[in-house]
Amino acid sequence: MTRKIGLIPGTGSQGQGIALRLALAGYEILIGSRKEEKAKKVAKELNKIIEKEKIQGTVNENIPQKCDLIFIILPYEFLEETLKPLRETFQKGTIIVDVVVPLAFKKGVAYILEDLPEKSASELIEKTLPEDISIVGAFKTISAITLKKINQPMEIDIFLTSNSQETKNEVKEILEKIPGLRGLDAGDLTVSRTIEQMTALVINLNRQNKELKHASFRVISSNR
Amino acid sequence: MTRKIGLIPGTGSQGQGIALRLALAGYEILIGSRKEEKAKKVAKELNKIIEKEKIQGTVNENIPQKCDLIFIILPYEFLEETLKPLRETFQKGTIIVDVVVPLAFKKGVAYILEDLPEKSASELIEKTLPEDISIVGAFKTISAITLKKINQPMEIDIFLTSNSQETKNEVKEILEKIPGLRGLDAGDLTVSRTIEQMTALVINLNRQNKELKHASFRVISSNR
Repeated sequence: MTRKIGLIPGTGSQGQGIALRLALAGYEILIGSRKEEKAKKVAKELNKIIEKEKIQGTVNENIPQKCDLIFIILPYEFLEETLKPLRETFQKGTIIVDVVVPLAFKKGVAYILEDLPEKSASELIEKTLPEDISIVGAFKTISAITLKKINQPMEIDIFLTSNSQETKNEVKEILEKIPGLRGLDAGDLTVSRTIEQMTALVINLNRQNKELKHASFRVISSNR
Repeated sequence: MTRKIGLIPGTGSQGQGIALRLALAGYEILIGSRKEEKAKKVAKELNKIIEKEKIQGTVNENIPQKCDLIFIILPYEFLEETLKPLRETFQKGTIIVDVVVPLAFKKGVAYILEDLPEKSASELIEKTLPEDISIVGAFKTISAITLKKINQPMEIDIFLTSNSQETKNEVKEILEKIPGLRGLDAGDLTVSRTIEQMTALVINLNRQNKELKHASFRVISSNR
């Protein structure tokens, strides 16, 4: 099955990186924004970078009707208020790829917000959207800057969390079309609690270790 | 300053791996056990593997008087009851390298115990030992099997947590004598909460991804 890929929103740094890499892998991408003008402007810029017409722009509200594989890349604080009004507009069988992290900073140090209504952004999205929508946590520990450097080879792992094994496998297959990315099955949606902590960790690793810049994780097997 | 390295205990799989690698890096190692006989037997076996007389065995209780860089590798459930009676026997200025993880398993899936008295093993050790002892969380996400395969090259990162920058730097310097290991400054002791979650994650990654075996983490910088 070919899925139509959309990003809510696709105009931020992480969204742009994901759009670029997926477009280069051959997918048609619809990027959303609160303002149509901005979405179209960013889409045009991204198409120029990849020298192909693969990316289009629209308002966030249009994405659920037009796409059935939707990346949610919202800042955590706008997650519920943005998704709730869209709740009934998602198509049945839609896959949500959740890239949200409840991140905050204190004196430059990243940390994960405590006392959340759900223990991870993934679980909050699951609670907010209808039951027949499958959610896969992904891309949470990947540097947006790294994704945007399209000419630089990557060797990075993406930790995939989901309560649906089938959906997790489908998302793994799609994202592995991007050269240098490997999807690893990290477990069910509750494991997003760990993965989101790792987002804060990797941001702080960049700050605390001068040899690291825009770092991401790789899992090294001992039998390679 | 040359430190005398001890392991409480050093007879388990992780302890053996750390003893082997540090001995090969040139250090003299004293491994502890509840039983002297067992400690001496394992020390002899390890020396045979490395073909050098670098490792000696004794009871755990002797380690604090004889060593000033002490790895704590106890199962979480025995942590407090083992350390409390030893509390006053540690030398002033001793560095503790904490390798403890509050790990449990349910249907084969690893997880971190909830409702702990402190939110990480590192913080529990800090609370249990005298104030003038510095604690560094380390080696928590490293496969013991990988450490024990001394002829296999490694390319692995160790996440270092501590409330003392000076001690963290000293431990980094020592463990980086082991070829293939890099120590990364992960932050203060509270960051051990994240690192301990990552222990459970990496164990489960091995189980859920057939391409992984005895895996550990590596942080990939984008500018390499």
